[in-house]
Amino acid sequence: MAKVTFSQCSENRQVMLLVITQVVVIALMATLTTYGPEASPTPSRNHLGAGGKSDVKSSRNPMRIYSNVHVMIWIGFGFLMTFLRRYGQSAVGLTFLTGAILVQVAILCDGVANWRKSEKAPLSLQGLLSADVAVAAPLISMGALLGKTTYMQLIFMGILELIVYTVNKHIGEHHLMAVDAGDSMYVHAFGAYFGLAVSFVFGVRDKPKEHPLEGPSYQSDIFAMIGTVFLWLFWPSFNSASLEGDDQQRAIINTLLSIAASCVIAFAVSVLVSKESKFNMVHVQNSTLAGGVAIGTAAGMMCEPIGALVVGCAAGALSVLGYKYLTPIIQKRLRIHDTCGVHNLHGMPGVLAGLFGALMAAIATETTYDYSLYEIFPARAPNSEVKLAEMRDNYGISAGLNRTAGQQAAYQLLALLVTLGLAVVSGLITGLILRASLWGSIAEEQKFDDSVHWELEEEAGHDLSSKSKEGSSRVIDQLPMAHI
Amino acid sequence: MAKVTFSQCSENRQVMLLVITQVVVIALMATLTTYGPEASPTPSRNHLGAGGKSDVKSSRNPMRIYSNVHVMIWIGFGFLMTFLRRYGQSAVGLTFLTGAILVQVAILCDGVANWRKSEKAPLSLQGLLSADVAVAAPLISMGALLGKTTYMQLIFMGILELIVYTVNKHIGEHHLMAVDAGDSMYVHAFGAYFGLAVSFVFGVRDKPKEHPLEGPSYQSDIFAMIGTVFLWLFWPSFNSASLEGDDQQRAIINTLLSIAASCVIAFAVSVLVSKESKFNMVHVQNSTLAGGVAIGTAAGMMCEPIGALVVGCAAGALSVLGYKYLTPIIQKRLRIHDTCGVHNLHGMPGVLAGLFGALMAAIATETTYDYSLYEIFPARAPNSEVKLAEMRDNYGISAGLNRTAGQQAAYQLLALLVTLGLAVVSGLITGLILRASLWGSIAEEQKFDDSVHWELEEEAGHDLSSKSKEGSSRVIDQLPMAHI
Amino acid sequence: MAKVTFSQCSENRQVMLLVITQVVVIALMATLTTYGPEASPTPSRNHLGAGGKSDVKSSRNPMRIYSNVHVMIWIGFGFLMTFLRRYGQSAVGLTFLTGAILVQVAILCDGVANWRKSEKAPLSLQGLLSADVAVAAPLISMGALLGKTTYMQLIFMGILELIVYTVNKHIGEHHLMAVDAGDSMYVHAFGAYFGLAVSFVFGVRDKPKEHPLEGPSYQSDIFAMIGTVFLWLFWPSFNSASLEGDDQQRAIINTLLSIAASCVIAFAVSVLVSKESKFNMVHVQNSTLAGGVAIGTAAGMMCEPIGALVVGCAAGALSVLGYKYLTPIIQKRLRIHDTCGVHNLHGMPGVLAGLFGALMAAIATETTYDYSLYEIFPARAPNSEVKLAEMRDNYGISAGLNRTAGQQAAYQLLALLVTLGLAVVSGLITGLILRASLWGSIAEEQKFDDSVHWELEEEAGHDLSSKSKEGSSRVIDQLPMAHI
Repeated sequence: MAKVTFSQCSENRQVMLLVITQVVVIALMATLTTYGPEASPTPSRNHLGAGGKSDVKSSRNPMRIYSNVHVMIWIGFGFLMTFLRRYGQSAVGLTFLTGAILVQVAILCDGVANWRKSEKAPLSLQGLLSADVAVAAPLISMGALLGKTTYMQLIFMGILELIVYTVNKHIGEHHLMAVDAGDSMYVHAFGAYFGLAVSFVFGVRDKPKEHPLEGPSYQSDIFAMIGTVFLWLFWPSFNSASLEGDDQQRAIINTLLSIAASCVIAFAVSVLVSKESKFNMVHVQNSTLAGGVAIGTAAGMMCEPIGALVVGCAAGALSVLGYKYLTPIIQKRLRIHDTCGVHNLHGMPGVLAGLFGALMAAIATETTYDYSLYEIFPARAPNSEVKLAEMRDNYGISAGLNRTAGQQAAYQLLALLVTLGLAVVSGLITGLILRASLWGSIAEEQKFDDSVHWELEEEAGHDLSSKSKEGSSRVIDQLPMAHI
Repeated sequence: MAKVTFSQCSENRQVMLLVITQVVVIALMATLTTYGPEASPTPSRNHLGAGGKSDVKSSRNPMRIYSNVHVMIWIGFGFLMTFLRRYGQSAVGLTFLTGAILVQVAILCDGVANWRKSEKAPLSLQGLLSADVAVAAPLISMGALLGKTTYMQLIFMGILELIVYTVNKHIGEHHLMAVDAGDSMYVHAFGAYFGLAVSFVFGVRDKPKEHPLEGPSYQSDIFAMIGTVFLWLFWPSFNSASLEGDDQQRAIINTLLSIAASCVIAFAVSVLVSKESKFNMVHVQNSTLAGGVAIGTAAGMMCEPIGALVVGCAAGALSVLGYKYLTPIIQKRLRIHDTCGVHNLHGMPGVLAGLFGALMAAIATETTYDYSLYEIFPARAPNSEVKLAEMRDNYGISAGLNRTAGQQAAYQLLALLVTLGLAVVSGLITGLILRASLWGSIAEEQKFDDSVHWELEEEAGHDLSSKSKEGSSRVIDQLPMAHI
Repeated sequence: MAKVTFSQCSENRQVMLLVITQVVVIALMATLTTYGPEASPTPSRNHLGAGGKSDVKSSRNPMRIYSNVHVMIWIGFGFLMTFLRRYGQSAVGLTFLTGAILVQVAILCDGVANWRKSEKAPLSLQGLLSADVAVAAPLISMGALLGKTTYMQLIFMGILELIVYTVNKHIGEHHLMAVDAGDSMYVHAFGAYFGLAVSFVFGVRDKPKEHPLEGPSYQSDIFAMIGTVFLWLFWPSFNSASLEGDDQQRAIINTLLSIAASCVIAFAVSVLVSKESKFNMVHVQNSTLAGGVAIGTAAGMMCEPIGALVVGCAAGALSVLGYKYLTPIIQKRLRIHDTCGVHNLHGMPGVLAGLFGALMAAIATETTYDYSLYEIFPARAPNSEVKLAEMRDNYGISAGLNRTAGQQAAYQLLALLVTLGLAVVSGLITGLILRASLWGSIAEEQKFDDSVHWELEEEAGHDLSSKSKEGSSRVIDQLPMAHI
């Protein structure tokens, strides 16, 4: 009884923190942002044509991509994580809540990072799209921690993560001038290793062990497939979100080929590593997507079909092998528990993407790319007036740093290293902060259980909320009867 | 046995009414409509450019918005209502059927309302989009009545409702010249109060009481989240469906901010009003969307980020408090049973939207809006030739009614009042008509039960279709075992 | 024990075949394809306008249609087939796998079929869209065989089917010059009769009988509705995928009207043929979509609203009657078992579409269509220089075959006959090939059971993988308890 009171007190503190967070976000949004030029009142001049060029150029492409990415973040990630048998409501619900607050934080971060001359940071559809992409990083980290945190731990982690994410992406894009079209380094690798670092800090104290609720049911595995398939379908949109014209077309084609190949190979390797020679749902739900991550950095480059297909195959195989052999070792030796196996879906394939991107950068020549080379790799553009003149006049290419292919590849690798370093260090620090009691915490017997966060109906409640041995063994006993 | 025969006879009469309805719709469609100009054969003149201007201007924007709104209506509303443990097939199925017949009726209504010089009303993609939006109104009303009506009651209610809806919207838009970009007054408030009025008429006789099947199961709550999340994701499309250019961009940004804030605050208030300090799925499924409704009327206006966020927070809180405190009172005192709580998701937030829209209209100035002011509020455009000349020549603005900001605000409020009045009066009348035996009716013990409308498999059948006390108590007893 | 070893050996052979298939596809893709012009590097010339004309003309339309069709193939078909109570993971999972490998095969086939002067076949977004459409054919055939094949049988069947599909479509479109906008003949009728022919070959040996697992559960029927509704929503996109301008608008309107009417009539006829006068989920999941198939061939033609609505009604009624009366006969007399009833959703409505298309072609005149007649039916364009001159100069219409309306109608019918003939003959041959032990096979007691292909959790495993009488009778006994 005393415990209930304590727990409620902690719950109330958490919810006040949530309200305060939203209030602070509102205050910052009011102070720092305003409508960008495309969303500012401009009489339509409809006798001159359809709404001016800004409408045609800026709003058309983002909207269709935006809808798809929007679905990936909330339906994709949310349902992918419903695979646990008693944590489905939390998976969708906490993705919903966390995403809703973090997308506002991401808009703020994006606004601040892109602050130019104007008084306030401009809001635009492109900014909303970037914010959606950014939110993927904390949701990936959430995958490593699923079932082991309170919602305020997730939200506070997400805020810290988005700040470091913004800094890291800014360094990578503007200082190192490294290319990462599908954000495989900046979002996927970053999110995964950040989350694993947090999980490491948690694991040092908790010592991860087997938990009776850490597994799927027949139904929850099908719910999870809703997430998987929507992610798989719209991944070409995700990887081409920041591109235009022929780069975008190429990113769509490359991503489709890569993610299709990784799907096939993930199924195949899943059978090959299975004792019963059967498919494993964990692999099918996750490793089938690894090709989307692995092609991300180079999505807009001239990989040729074979490049995209081969990197997709490698990612699919790597991911399944990771689930089978690496995850248990990491959990046992390093005490890093990774609920969704983000290391296998986002971590390793993200590193693979960075390496493949560096390789593609190393072999990129003007022969293959024409002057597009300097649009895709702006740092490779000449910096001498003489060489630049024609390109600038005809194609609007600005002066670059005159990098060679090798130099560009080295900077690509540097961006990967910086990303991994920042992710791990900031993840460890975040983990330590999250262990403060301020954000509440989840006890061993509460893990992977919706009843911690949700008012379940009596039907469920009187069975499951009782944490007696008896109660929980009853649940397990009943599973065979309830899986249809 | 006698009862079965009677019920089948009633069922057969219902299905004949359904067939007749479809036949009448076909006859009217054949008589009254034809392809609009954009869908009429025009040789493509492809050497002059891509399909002519009409193609570029009229078809591009509707299509992407249309797909999103289409998903909201059938997946969004359909799955949102699957939360009841034994009414999921009806929720999706009856949304499917009702939507399919009503969208045809709405196309007819829209065609008739926009009938201009031509012989027949023109069909266009824009008309299909308007029809989808219109269908939302009866589906909202259906939310108040879910589980308590036959399908023909729903369909006939929808037909009457769409006629009044069309009249009301026409009065509001063309006579009162009130702005309602996201149709929060015309669709949401109208649909909610219409449905509540019908439910009132039903309740006078039925006296709503507790029903053993009126609650969710663990799985049904997750199915409902499919609906919630798709609605949440595409609400920016819904609110910007009737806008163009920068107004549309602003509506997307405002709606995203408002609905994100309402999501966060709905979660927070859900914990605050909970005895156990936990989230409640009803709130999460519904109140998280209230911000989308509440920003609707003013979606295209210059709310600034803070305005959108604050109105979203208010709507989220209002909605949860409504579920917790108001709905039980309304059910007890007024005998209005509201299965999905549409009063809290569409009713009150719709009224809030109307008030907020009036406030924004009251403070709208040419300084803030530039000449766009007269595009957003056409009634505010000057009516004197002298003032109008430059605006018309440069921006195509037509003569208005020279309203002041205060006058426009007053008309906005008037439109809200007219909407509420028409909704309640026509809802009461419709309720009385629906009590006629022609449409069939649902007995108390048949409520919230799929077996009324669906051939369930024997597995389910032999348990549930028997309406004996014993049968139904068995179902309840089994729930604890079957929720995983 | 010996059986397990044998089965594993067979499983291992299958998985090696899967890997080999993927490797061969990669080799062919590398040899035969490259990026098409829109995806090839071109500096953006951004001072001349937004990315050049190719961007505006070629990439805009495909992308939004592509996203919708993409959802139809994997979410639509995948979830539609989850209706079986113990085959949901296979339904989604095998659609996922089969689709992922076959979309690559379809890209190859499409590339080869459209190979023009260039050295390699060009990849483009339009090509990806065509490949998605093509993949629908084998997925339809899969519907006839669901639960009765190994995954390699499905994949190998799909490869053979795609080759014949490509040949048949090429004959129909280029030699017979028959129009089939929504591919109702080339995809739906072809896929259905091909699958039925394969099923016939299987049935000759197996003699289809009642199977305890061949039925839905309460939950699985709701999962299936996810598929149904997404298919229904995006069918207008599917039928308009190959069209442009006003043809596309018309196809969207016609398809919406037809599929809405078929939805209403399918519900109605489902009640009319029901002993209990109730809806049947099988009809609701499938026959509601028949109108989308039936309008496909004529989707872009001048059917007028009444034509679309009437053909939709006919298709909905035909499909339900087929499920009720024809399917049992076909199974009993012809020993063709059709798990999903594709004959009723794709077969007969596909034939209806072909007939309706021929009828519409027979009554098409220049009066109704203007010069668009020669864009929609290129074979009807004059072949004499004199008549052609003005059309060619003003509208870019090329010389045709000067066919009369009646001739065009005859060719439409010929295309339908060729399609049916090729489907049946190639399906029979494919069925014989699939009976070779190379691809594995499913024994009677393994049918419709996920445990054949999936590592199910112990909870399920120890119950279901044991194939003892006792085990399987327990499953059935438990169903009544587990359906909520």
